[in-house]
Amino acid sequence: MKRVLSGTRPTGILHLGNYFGAIESWVKLQDQYECYFFVADWHALTTGYEDTTNLREYTKQVVIDLLASGLDPNKCTIFVQSHVPEHVELHLLFSMITPLSWLYRCPTYKDQMRELKEKNIATYGFLGYPCLQAADILIYKAELVPVGEDQLPHLELTREIARRFNYLYGQIFPEPQPILNTVKVLIGTDGRKMSKSYGNTIALSEDLESVRKKVMNMVTDPARIRKNDPGHPEVCTVFAYHKIFSEDTVDEIEINCREGKIGCVECKKKLFDNLSKFLEPIQSKRKKLENDIDYVLGVIEEGAKKARAIASQTLKEAKDRAGLL
Amino acid sequence: MKRVLSGTRPTGILHLGNYFGAIESWVKLQDQYECYFFVADWHALTTGYEDTTNLREYTKQVVIDLLASGLDPNKCTIFVQSHVPEHVELHLLFSMITPLSWLYRCPTYKDQMRELKEKNIATYGFLGYPCLQAADILIYKAELVPVGEDQLPHLELTREIARRFNYLYGQIFPEPQPILNTVKVLIGTDGRKMSKSYGNTIALSEDLESVRKKVMNMVTDPARIRKNDPGHPEVCTVFAYHKIFSEDTVDEIEINCREGKIGCVECKKKLFDNLSKFLEPIQSKRKKLENDIDYVLGVIEEGAKKARAIASQTLKEAKDRAGLL
Ligand code: SF4
Ligand code: SF4
Repeated sequence: MKRVLSGTRPTGILHLGNYFGAIESWVKLQDQYECYFFVADWHALTTGYEDTTNLREYTKQVVIDLLASGLDPNKCTIFVQSHVPEHVELHLLFSMITPLSWLYRCPTYKDQMRELKEKNIATYGFLGYPCLQAADILIYKAELVPVGEDQLPHLELTREIARRFNYLYGQIFPEPQPILNTVKVLIGTDGRKMSKSYGNTIALSEDLESVRKKVMNMVTDPARIRKNDPGHPEVCTVFAYHKIFSEDTVDEIEINCREGKIGCVECKKKLFDNLSKFLEPIQSKRKKLENDIDYVLGVIEEGAKKARAIASQTLKEAKDRAGLL
Repeated sequence: MKRVLSGTRPTGILHLGNYFGAIESWVKLQDQYECYFFVADWHALTTGYEDTTNLREYTKQVVIDLLASGLDPNKCTIFVQSHVPEHVELHLLFSMITPLSWLYRCPTYKDQMRELKEKNIATYGFLGYPCLQAADILIYKAELVPVGEDQLPHLELTREIARRFNYLYGQIFPEPQPILNTVKVLIGTDGRKMSKSYGNTIALSEDLESVRKKVMNMVTDPARIRKNDPGHPEVCTVFAYHKIFSEDTVDEIEINCREGKIGCVECKKKLFDNLSKFLEPIQSKRKKLENDIDYVLGVIEEGAKKARAIASQTLKEAKDRAGLL
């Protein structure tokens, strides 16, 4: 069975954007492959080292969200990156053979330097982040990595590092291939990209009354003043959500909107009903997990053990080839 | 008792230049402080990753040389850097908080980039080498570091990283101070700087017949054609060696040379005698160690254990402060 590796940053509790951007596909992948999913707390430091007050708590909350969303520790390995120090050693080994130019060339490097310019991220660790990512993937000799299209250059860099290592010290690493997610992109409640920094997210664990308010406040087609005015669903945030949460009725809603046969308030209520149906099972599972933190901590501990069993073998082999130990 | 940390790279078997540049002072320091001395095999990769064929063997040979030179595992802790993975994790943590500009500013960075331009050392790991060095020192919370004057900027960088960590996450690291070695600089047998790459070294383990030849071939004062010609010891390589190996008689040799009362051949023979007296006990101890490799490996293993006992405590504390674990 092919091995899959993917990680998520503990930037806070997960929201619907995270779910449809990655977690939904992880839940499917765990049935098809030998999967390793991790919470990337070291990576969180690359951009967030200045305030790590919530890092530990967020890390735990993300694991809870992953379990609540359907990841099953009997089907996949779930762990926290910093619990597997082998990642870090392989990262140092890769750092020795990775030309600086490869890192500066990385398209996301300049993007992020610009986007996050209010933070002091011109650090050594931030520049080396793709090197750590290569170690994350290759320490498990993962053959498949689910990525969004924007992350393809990173995966290419991982392949380049694997090739360089294999060339210098002998063939041990596979060149991992992407699984291109057919990701559903969910916009934020204000119609912009969903992002914590815009305050336009809906958390997986969000109180349903709060969800209801957010839905009722969504901007609809501004051309609809009266209920009978024909609407343009393509410009309406509510409709964007219906496409994901109301698959069975979305066509009917579209027709009724265009023909002015449904009011926006009614349409929003329908969305809220469907959103609730989606969130309820996740939230009820979450409550159970919150009441059994020992179980969650056990999953994390067991995950680290399973991950280290593989990671320590690869590290031994890699250090041995490179003349260390 | 204050803690001292120092390391040496496994660039090959140690030569007299290494001995007087560092080891001699280590032997003294082990009686005065709680000392940790290590063979820096990770650092060897920063410039030597392209050919690591001999790295493991050199690492072992350096440990043998250190023991033969008088380091006593009952007085100090001797270990191999890559056997203590805590260095690597602390390095990653430091890399997150170290501005790139600090590394580019480091005076040795540009020097080495120029000196080693035939090697491909424009790597991420080479740039980050002072960050790894900071981890080497601070993982033991060492208060004193024996350094040559040229390495003072590195130690200053270690102090800056310690200050930055303490500022961001709370005071845990001391700011280590230099012990400025009153190092004896020994030139090579050809009068240039002693360096393996010039082929002008005398190894601690060098066969005495080979040492004799090197001494007899040393360039003396070119103005001395006949034995009675007055000499100029200050331009003579042999004399530079006498200053170190013939402390009791160096004044007499100087006078006799200036007055043309000693021939260069005789002068070289005296040097060879004294060099032999210096090398013989080291070499006989070395032979014993070579015949008892299990003892040497035991020292290395025990050293790693003692080092990790301290290092793992510091790492736990540092990761905890930074919000990891
Ligand atoms: S009826 Fe529904 S889809 Fe149409 S504009 Fe109103 S909220 Fe949007
Ligand atoms: S006598 Fe000795 S010190 Fe003087 S030039 Fe000859 S070798 Fe050098």
